[in-house]
Amino acid sequence: MISTARIVGAGLIGTSIGLCLKSAGIKVEMVDVDSNSAQLAQDLVKSTPLSEPDLIVVAVPISANQKVVVEQLNANPNSIVCDLASVKSDLLVKVEELSDNAKNFISLHPMAGRELSGAQSARADLFIGRAWVLITGSKSSEKAKLVADSFIKICGGSSYQMSSAEHDLTVAKLSHLPQILSSSLAASLLEVSEDNLNISGQGIRDLTRLANSDSKLWSEIFLANQSSLTPALEKLISHLQGLQKSLVSNKKEEIEDFLKKGREGKDKIPGKHGAKSRNYAFLPIVIDDKPGQLAIIFNECAKIAVNIEDLSIEHSPGQETGLITLALSESDCIKLSEHLEKLGFKVHPTKNR
Amino acid sequence: MISTARIVGAGLIGTSIGLCLKSAGIKVEMVDVDSNSAQLAQDLVKSTPLSEPDLIVVAVPISANQKVVVEQLNANPNSIVCDLASVKSDLLVKVEELSDNAKNFISLHPMAGRELSGAQSARADLFIGRAWVLITGSKSSEKAKLVADSFIKICGGSSYQMSSAEHDLTVAKLSHLPQILSSSLAASLLEVSEDNLNISGQGIRDLTRLANSDSKLWSEIFLANQSSLTPALEKLISHLQGLQKSLVSNKKEEIEDFLKKGREGKDKIPGKHGAKSRNYAFLPIVIDDKPGQLAIIFNECAKIAVNIEDLSIEHSPGQETGLITLALSESDCIKLSEHLEKLGFKVHPTKNR
Repeated sequence: MISTARIVGAGLIGTSIGLCLKSAGIKVEMVDVDSNSAQLAQDLVKSTPLSEPDLIVVAVPISANQKVVVEQLNANPNSIVCDLASVKSDLLVKVEELSDNAKNFISLHPMAGRELSGAQSARADLFIGRAWVLITGSKSSEKAKLVADSFIKICGGSSYQMSSAEHDLTVAKLSHLPQILSSSLAASLLEVSEDNLNISGQGIRDLTRLANSDSKLWSEIFLANQSSLTPALEKLISHLQGLQKSLVSNKKEEIEDFLKKGREGKDKIPGKHGAKSRNYAFLPIVIDDKPGQLAIIFNECAKIAVNIEDLSIEHSPGQETGLITLALSESDCIKLSEHLEKLGFKVHPTKNR
Repeated sequence: MISTARIVGAGLIGTSIGLCLKSAGIKVEMVDVDSNSAQLAQDLVKSTPLSEPDLIVVAVPISANQKVVVEQLNANPNSIVCDLASVKSDLLVKVEELSDNAKNFISLHPMAGRELSGAQSARADLFIGRAWVLITGSKSSEKAKLVADSFIKICGGSSYQMSSAEHDLTVAKLSHLPQILSSSLAASLLEVSEDNLNISGQGIRDLTRLANSDSKLWSEIFLANQSSLTPALEKLISHLQGLQKSLVSNKKEEIEDFLKKGREGKDKIPGKHGAKSRNYAFLPIVIDDKPGQLAIIFNECAKIAVNIEDLSIEHSPGQETGLITLALSESDCIKLSEHLEKLGFKVHPTKNR
């Protein structure tokens, strides 16, 4: 059903889609108005130029979305076009107004992303197990629906149908409010001294992860979704003001109730649908903090044909040793662990971390 | 220096400490007022009854903390006693007032925890790489300081000295505000339909993780730290109100500024173990997914004396290419980029990612 696809927009999302479709055996063309981004994405995806591909995926900033969707629809009357914008508002109405090929259009929103941006942060598995919102216009053809469904399946996602309006309301709460709280909390750290920030634990790190997001992109998103976002933010602010009052007046039960409601809300979030956990084994290795240590480990991996899926390094300037953790297949983990142990390395194989 | 230790309080933190000390070869006694918790922890840790152990760790809810610290100090004049409470307020003053053995007391706070609670959630590695706040009283003996330092090292932590007041102010911002925001955001989900919650992405999941925390424990913590927490919460609320105004009045630049400040704050958080964040240049390199690719790159780095400060790998199963991003000094980045390009590698130097 899909053997060729063009991705317009070589950012994080577009390039990740490109990698994903490519690994499913589809011929992919990556395009971007920025030639540097286009070049990196084309190298990563091994892009081929295409004309009227089966599928065109528009993955551009929201300010350019409608224009690019209409352009692609009008220039490629035989292609199915999907956009991935995170706010929909009147997109479908506009597209039906401005294109004779609106039957070829389906609006999608994959609930996936990273706080990093650009093609350099892309990964093929970004969408595995993720929910995709699917919004069909009144004119969308059966063929367009089938292609969009197939596209979502190839990406490993599950689709959930919604109206534009419901989508915008829901993402205000599930996506835009979290971004606002993360940024606000992170901004409050500007008043904490660098010394005191040394004691930052996992909570503050997790809650401020999203604060790394692109400010230009997100200010566009917030404004595009203003009408759904402002009432949600207002409610949250008054909820916090309620807690503030309970705190000042020493109302322990009210504070407990505030926390309990949070727990109830948290419990409502369903498990990831069809999430395939990447079943890696993790191999932490204690290394001396001196040049060449990593090269030795990587050379040994190559020597015994062990493939490193991912890795992280933890070390501090004051510490004599560092910890490198390799993510490997289970069999590679056992193989490498035994191999390195024989060489005198301090390895600590584990299945979870 | 520490060959025997008693842990008073068999919750998540106390039992994790017990597991950790036990695995370091120390004889451990676990005690708890609740006999079920005590039994589970004793079985887990293989507890032995002890009298006047070298170290006594008090890991009880904040409402019982001062009382238990004083009891243990008075009953065990030859033991060093450490508490782990997350709010200190006038604890040290009170202890000096109520015990003749205040010289044996050191107040600690490990910046670690989980949103789960109880001995069953305990893990020996909970404290590896974590920051510990160390607060010495005016009367604390040299021996007490040495034992506390040794205790923190055994747990794999790094210690940061602070006054009680500074500690309480700092945790209000780094620990208590994140808990409040997480609970508040999670509570707002009570108004979202179960169907619509199906599209929950990683952002809302991460930001509401802490909302699972124990409501009784945390309401005690909030109230104990009321004087530091309320001004911090007030500031955050008015920051959110500022954004609300910018949204309503369509001020794109103000919204961008809000987001940028968040990013700046986020950037201030040091790497784990207190490593200072540095301005690295990043060199993304596209590699084929086969063993030995990383080794080649590391060997070339060693050959031209380029020092790798950090690295990340973006690659997922099934993807034909991978991307390795090296963090380097700017000059090393240029040097390596040119070197690898000559060898035919696809490099894409960039300053931000």
